[in-house]
Amino acid sequence: MAAAEPIIKFGIIGCADIARKVSRAIRLSPLSTLYAVGSRSVEKAAKFAKDNGFPESAKVYGSYEAVLDDPDIDAVYVPLPTSLHIKWAVLAAQKKKHLLLEKPVALNVKELDVILEACRSNGVQFMDATMWMHHPRTAKMKEFLNDPENFGQLKSIYSLFTFAADDIFLEGDIRVKPDLDALGALGDVGWYCIRAILFTADFELPKFVIASRNPVLNKVGVILSCGASLYWEDGKVATFFCSFLANLTMEITAVGTKGTLRLADFVIPFEEGKASFSGGVKSWFDDLVTGWVPKPSEHIVTTDLPQEAQMVKEFSRLVGSIKSGGSEPEMKWPTISRKTQLVIDAVKTSIDKGFESVEVIS
Amino acid sequence: MAAAEPIIKFGIIGCADIARKVSRAIRLSPLSTLYAVGSRSVEKAAKFAKDNGFPESAKVYGSYEAVLDDPDIDAVYVPLPTSLHIKWAVLAAQKKKHLLLEKPVALNVKELDVILEACRSNGVQFMDATMWMHHPRTAKMKEFLNDPENFGQLKSIYSLFTFAADDIFLEGDIRVKPDLDALGALGDVGWYCIRAILFTADFELPKFVIASRNPVLNKVGVILSCGASLYWEDGKVATFFCSFLANLTMEITAVGTKGTLRLADFVIPFEEGKASFSGGVKSWFDDLVTGWVPKPSEHIVTTDLPQEAQMVKEFSRLVGSIKSGGSEPEMKWPTISRKTQLVIDAVKTSIDKGFESVEVIS
Repeated sequence: MAAAEPIIKFGIIGCADIARKVSRAIRLSPLSTLYAVGSRSVEKAAKFAKDNGFPESAKVYGSYEAVLDDPDIDAVYVPLPTSLHIKWAVLAAQKKKHLLLEKPVALNVKELDVILEACRSNGVQFMDATMWMHHPRTAKMKEFLNDPENFGQLKSIYSLFTFAADDIFLEGDIRVKPDLDALGALGDVGWYCIRAILFTADFELPKFVIASRNPVLNKVGVILSCGASLYWEDGKVATFFCSFLANLTMEITAVGTKGTLRLADFVIPFEEGKASFSGGVKSWFDDLVTGWVPKPSEHIVTTDLPQEAQMVKEFSRLVGSIKSGGSEPEMKWPTISRKTQLVIDAVKTSIDKGFESVEVIS
Repeated sequence: MAAAEPIIKFGIIGCADIARKVSRAIRLSPLSTLYAVGSRSVEKAAKFAKDNGFPESAKVYGSYEAVLDDPDIDAVYVPLPTSLHIKWAVLAAQKKKHLLLEKPVALNVKELDVILEACRSNGVQFMDATMWMHHPRTAKMKEFLNDPENFGQLKSIYSLFTFAADDIFLEGDIRVKPDLDALGALGDVGWYCIRAILFTADFELPKFVIASRNPVLNKVGVILSCGASLYWEDGKVATFFCSFLANLTMEITAVGTKGTLRLADFVIPFEEGKASFSGGVKSWFDDLVTGWVPKPSEHIVTTDLPQEAQMVKEFSRLVGSIKSGGSEPEMKWPTISRKTQLVIDAVKTSIDKGFESVEVIS
């Protein structure tokens, strides 16, 4: 890092469980510092700061507003329930705080557009907190997928993310409450599947989506399990399945005309320092079809910083450039968020309309 | 093997490429012998016998009929194009030859029922040549899937089988000809996907299927690429994708409430003597969600006989029991073939009817 790069002062709004992990990431990242935390209860904020390695000097606030009003804070990380994003994300942007926003970023693209417009008009960086996008493995996967000689033209994508929620989660977690995270499993685990599909398709939007039959909803109508297929103009097909009701599993399989990418831990690598993916290239059989020649290769990628710290580092780098160099916000990140949200909206609409085909219109 | 078990004398009808592999399997299996081969050309049959390790004493015939008329032959292996199955499989059964029939077994279930009725009324064993069913790994997978403590209730299945056919295949292979293998990729690679899904679902038939949009057909209407989703009464969902137009890839992912089974070489193991699958059980994360505890385990299964020889051995054992012990034919195998064919028919109907939902009625 250049000596001149500024250290970004983070405020955290809310003490959600995931904020523990991001606090550690802010500590680990070389370009950021844990500057403040705000909760509706100052005691809770103080306990959070103490438990999560905040420096002695860190500010502890008894409200979210107080964090946004602190003029020394450069950026906020917002892990609040999705229904609160529109209020707090917009307010943060208006207070000129750069915005690292938990996913799902909004209840729908209309809300997201309000948030993104607030970021744009206030000149702040927007990034959603999809950590795996920042793992160096992801960059290697992109190289593999973009290689016309060894991967070729993408034909089929599958993505799945499930975990087996316990009864406490299924009764009380914000992700099963219609007034908090109304998108349920689609907004939580489904967000990652859709992001994975878009990533694999180089962020080309599908033309239309059709939700799978048999989604599972809880008593108050929140999705616990669903899936959909996505279709592109050029014939590519993607399918995903996401659920709170099945064993923890995560997977991307992308098949091109010449190559195949597979991995089973795309959201959270099996271990922190090392991650891999399988890359098959021009796979075929031996003469009697009794084995593969060549077999797929395992591509191993090590990392000094965990993916969430890579995320904080990249976000901080962008914020630093804006602060010190007069750079404009990097539009790649809000663009990707918006595409993900557009597909989520289309899947939700397809479910609501009885599994109709729904066009994805940007 | 018991000293009394008879050695089954095989005749092969047709010199298809796949017959080379099965000839080797008949040689390797301890309960079978390569007794005869018939082709429309006696020279071709003689060359095939010479190239594929038939004993000097083996019979070489210039027609398929001659093989069926040889009273010493116990069983025939039929690798002919699917459109010829109904004629030759029925004739074989009428000549009291036990029947090892290449997949897809028939163009539709109506034809298959004629074949199966011929087998039943003539007391001969029927088995389709789906080799992976006989790998000892498959039995271990079944144990894993059937374990209520460690796999639980099945929720989601994905299966894919693709290979990148070259221009010669796409112009001239029997699998792209409407008068030979009219089911194209659905009958060839799709057969394996559907079998994998049924295997995983313990051969419970789905209630209905819906084909995916965007199937690819060649100029004469044969499927080169397609997919479908299968739905069960209890909410299980399966999706498959099969294609001649994408890199060689094969995959099963089955997710239960407690466990996950994954493998990437289910049809043809990467290597002959050793194969594996990944089994995740009650997977979760560490406290900060930076890694998995426990990680999925790799289950490795070695085999002395390749899966196709295991198939020939099991088929020969059943034939031997009928010959020597007066046993009845084992109905498990025709039942499984018929269920696979029923689902293929439903997918084909869904494609033909514009992706309608099609009930699977046995």
